[in-house]
Order: sequence, then C-alpha cells, then structure tokens
Amino acid sequence: MTSEAITVLGLGNLGRALAEAFVRADQAVTVWNRSAARASGLEATVAGSAAEAVAASGLVVVAVLDHQAAQQVLHGVDVRGRALVNLTSGTPDEARELAGWAAANGAEYLHGAVYAVPQTIGTDASSIIYSGSQAVHERWREALALLGKVTFLGADAGRASGYDVAILSGMYGLLGGFLHAAALARAGGIKVTELTPMLLSWLEDLQPALTTFAEEIDGGSYDSAESSIAMNRSGVATLIRATEAQGVPFAALDALKALVDRQIDEGHGEASLSRVVESFGRVSQGFAG
Amino acid sequence: MTSEAITVLGLGNLGRALAEAFVRADQAVTVWNRSAARASGLEATVAGSAAEAVAASGLVVVAVLDHQAAQQVLHGVDVRGRALVNLTSGTPDEARELAGWAAANGAEYLHGAVYAVPQTIGTDASSIIYSGSQAVHERWREALALLGKVTFLGADAGRASGYDVAILSGMYGLLGGFLHAAALARAGGIKVTELTPMLLSWLEDLQPALTTFAEEIDGGSYDSAESSIAMNRSGVATLIRATEAQGVPFAALDALKALVDRQIDEGHGEASLSRVVESFGRVSQGFAG
Repeated sequence: MTSEAITVLGLGNLGRALAEAFVRADQAVTVWNRSAARASGLEATVAGSAAEAVAASGLVVVAVLDHQAAQQVLHGVDVRGRALVNLTSGTPDEARELAGWAAANGAEYLHGAVYAVPQTIGTDASSIIYSGSQAVHERWREALALLGKVTFLGADAGRASGYDVAILSGMYGLLGGFLHAAALARAGGIKVTELTPMLLSWLEDLQPALTTFAEEIDGGSYDSAESSIAMNRSGVATLIRATEAQGVPFAALDALKALVDRQIDEGHGEASLSRVVESFGRVSQGFAG
Repeated sequence: MTSEAITVLGLGNLGRALAEAFVRADQAVTVWNRSAARASGLEATVAGSAAEAVAASGLVVVAVLDHQAAQQVLHGVDVRGRALVNLTSGTPDEARELAGWAAANGAEYLHGAVYAVPQTIGTDASSIIYSGSQAVHERWREALALLGKVTFLGADAGRASGYDVAILSGMYGLLGGFLHAAALARAGGIKVTELTPMLLSWLEDLQPALTTFAEEIDGGSYDSAESSIAMNRSGVATLIRATEAQGVPFAALDALKALVDRQIDEGHGEASLSRVVESFGRVSQGFAG
C-alpha cells in the first residue's frame, strides 16, 4: 500500500508495538510520548508535542495509560479533520465522551480494543475490535489491518469497550482461576506443568456448556439439566473447604458462592448454573431486578 | 468382558450414571441408596442396606454427597477383601483418612475424581483420575474403563483429590469469569451468544501464556516479559472501575487485585504475572514466605 502519514500518541508497551508495526510496513510515522526516550531506536519522526504530532498526519492512533491520560493528551489540541483511533482501555461511557468531544472539535472518532500481547501486534495472532466512525473504519481500513485482524461492531463508539470489559472479565476469571490452581498444586506437591495440560483439556471440554449457557441467558430460560445451581453450590462449598484445608483460600470462590446462594435462596436450585447471571449487580444495588 | 459383580453406593446424579454405565456393559450390578426410589428403572439388584450391597460384590464404587456421607455409609460395614473405589469429592486428607480406615478394616482403597457431566459417563467425553491402591487399579481396570478414560496418579490416595481441587478451582475461575462477562454483556445491550465465540477465541489464544506461566512457577523464575504484574495491575484496576460504572461489580476481581497488589508492594512490578502465585495463602496465614 501507499505510504501514508500516521501518528501514534503514547509509546508504552502497546503504543511502541503499534508504531513499530506501521514502521515495518513503510508508513511515514510520527510519534509523541511524554518521555521522548521511549522513541529511541524507532524509525519515526519524534514530535515535540502532541499538537505537533496530531498536525503531522491524517490518522492519529492513541494508546495511553487510561482515559484520563487520553483526555489530557488530546484536550486543547487542534484535531480538525483528523481521524482519531483510540486504543486506550476504558469504559463504554468514556469512549462515548471522547467521541462527543471529537465531534464537537471537528474530528472523527473510532474506538478500539486490542486482543494481542505487544509482541504479536501486526501478526495473525493480533485482533482488534472497533466501533464508532464508519467513515474512519473504511478510509483507514488498510492501515488498521497492519496492526491485526479488524472487526467493526457498529456506530456506537462505546460498543467495542462494552465487548472489551466483558471479554477482559472472562479473561481475568480464567487467569485468577489458573493462578489459584497453580498455588493449590504447589501446596499439594504437584508440578504445575503436570497439572496445566489436564486443566486446559478439561476447560476445553467445558466450551459446549458455555455455549449452551449463552443461549439460555439470551433466551431467559435456564432449563438445561447438565449443571444445576444446587449441584454447583455443593461443588463450590466442598471446594472452598478443600482450599482452606490446604491453606490456599481465594476470596473469588466466596464471591461466586454468594451469587450461587442467592439463586438457591430464591428457589432456583434446579435451574441451570447459567441463571447465576441474574444475581450480578443486585446485591450491591439493593433492588430485586 | 466377563460379567463381574459390582456395587454402587449412592444414586445421586453421578452414582446413577455410574450404575447405568455398568448395567449397559452387562455387569451384575447391586445398588444401594438412602432413598431406594432413586433406583427406579435401573436393571440392578437393589440392596436393603449398605452392608448388604457391599457383601454382594468384589468392587464397591462409592459416589455420595461428600466425605461425611461416605464415612456414614461405610463405617460399621464389613469391607474385608473388598476393593473400594471412592468417587466422592473431598480434600486430599479426607481421601487419605478413608484409605487408612480401609486398610485398618481389611479393604483396599482407590480414590477418583470424575471429569464428566453425568450424561457423558461411560463415553469418550468422560475422564477419571485415580490414586491409591495400585492393586485395585490393575485388578479392576477393565471395569473402571467402562466409566471413562482411566488415569492413575500413584499410590498416595490423596493425590487425585489434590489434582481435583486444583482443576476445579481453575474451572470455577473460568465459570465465574464467564458468568460475569455475560452479566456485563447484558448490561451493555450485547447478546451473550455474540460475545461468547469472541471470548472463547481469546481464551484459547491465552493457552500458550498459561503454559509459560506453569514453567515459570515450577522453575521459580518469573521472567517472561509478555504480561507483567504492573501491566496487569493497571488492567485489573481499569476493569474494576469499568464494571462498577456498568453497575455489575464482582468481588472476584477485587480478590485478584489484592494478590496482584501484594506483588507490587514487594517490588515485583516488572515480574511476570505468574509471580502472583506467591501471594496465595500468605495474607490469611500472616507470614511472609
């Protein structure tokens, strides 16, 4: 593809990897970072300010620590006519707020969430979901494809973040569970490298159940018989006892048990485990939804 | 194979499925359950007491609610010369306790943990890990293979439970994370059936990282650069804020963050996320190390 001027704001692990992927594809890259030292060794123009960096390119990719940092970097900068692609993690409302700010300041806004470790940016193992400006998605599709597989989820700038928050919650559930499993294995004199293949194999066997759960949740009918609330309450209670006996408790299990217990209390012991989704957000919000 | 006399104690969801698998393979099956009604429709001899059921067969498979129930069923029964295979969930020490009791009463003891839903017992989708009596494992291997894939983990009767506690902790981490992801999707107007394939795909992409983590944990050197403690602390903190903003908090994330924070406090921000394994068991036990 033709070389196009692209700016990357922020050179943390992610921003640096994004800039490198553009450089590898022979794009004319301008970068800016609070500490210019992070640009060392990068074949890119290092701008003296965020404003200067934004002025240099039609496409401006933002990858900073958090929403507040994104606001600080962009506010006060002339973004007229620019395509802003923000890959900074945050809430759906934060993405919508920046989209509104961009519209009010003459720029178009696309928000993205990255599924890759920095080392795989620009490879087949990288996937980025986007939502917001359809025009930016179409005009810059080739440049965005240099970073990883592109999935566009529609015009609501908050939608990609909505998916992202859900996907990261699932991921941290797995990571927390894995780390807990590893700690328990160590306490029991079991090698984690011996445990892990068995654990991964069993988690893979669970995937059809998760697909069934998803259908039940969308349909609002929690009637598959494979894994009832009552069976799982007994399972989680036994497990909590066992982890305490091994000296390796993890409060995440108590948090899950509280949600399961609420379904039991409401008389749904024979329902599918998927019904636990109804417990979320209710205890803390104090209403019966 | 030749028909052999097999007894199943307990006809809950699991016990009933075990008995059915033996019946399907034309074994001579004797069953006992606290409530005999659960035996209805099963082509098996229904014993009037646990003692009578144990007297009927050389192999006695136990599948009751928990360790306490297993003790209640077995204590006082003449188990001399019997091969006891206990598939009841519990802690490693509970399994060892029953193994000791069996030895003192002239029986041999094998403990197992089942990876299957009741519907898949006896199919290729069923896998059971065992530890304890090598003699029982060898003598009854064909009968046990009727229930699912057999894996023998050695002579320590508690070892299978040690694996089981770890594997179930990993599983409930994933299940809790999935249910939280589903609740967040609903709150954001996203179909769970649309989210789930993306979530499962990303979790699959994480598997090599988990394998790396396992190697780091066994080796005690937490030096892979892909996913640092500091990066993940920032990620979890942002995620907690996002889930609260959506009205769908989950205390499991706070529990994970506390473990990550401890590593930060101890100066390990640049270490691999796998180092969080060192945080488990320490806060509640009140010692460092």
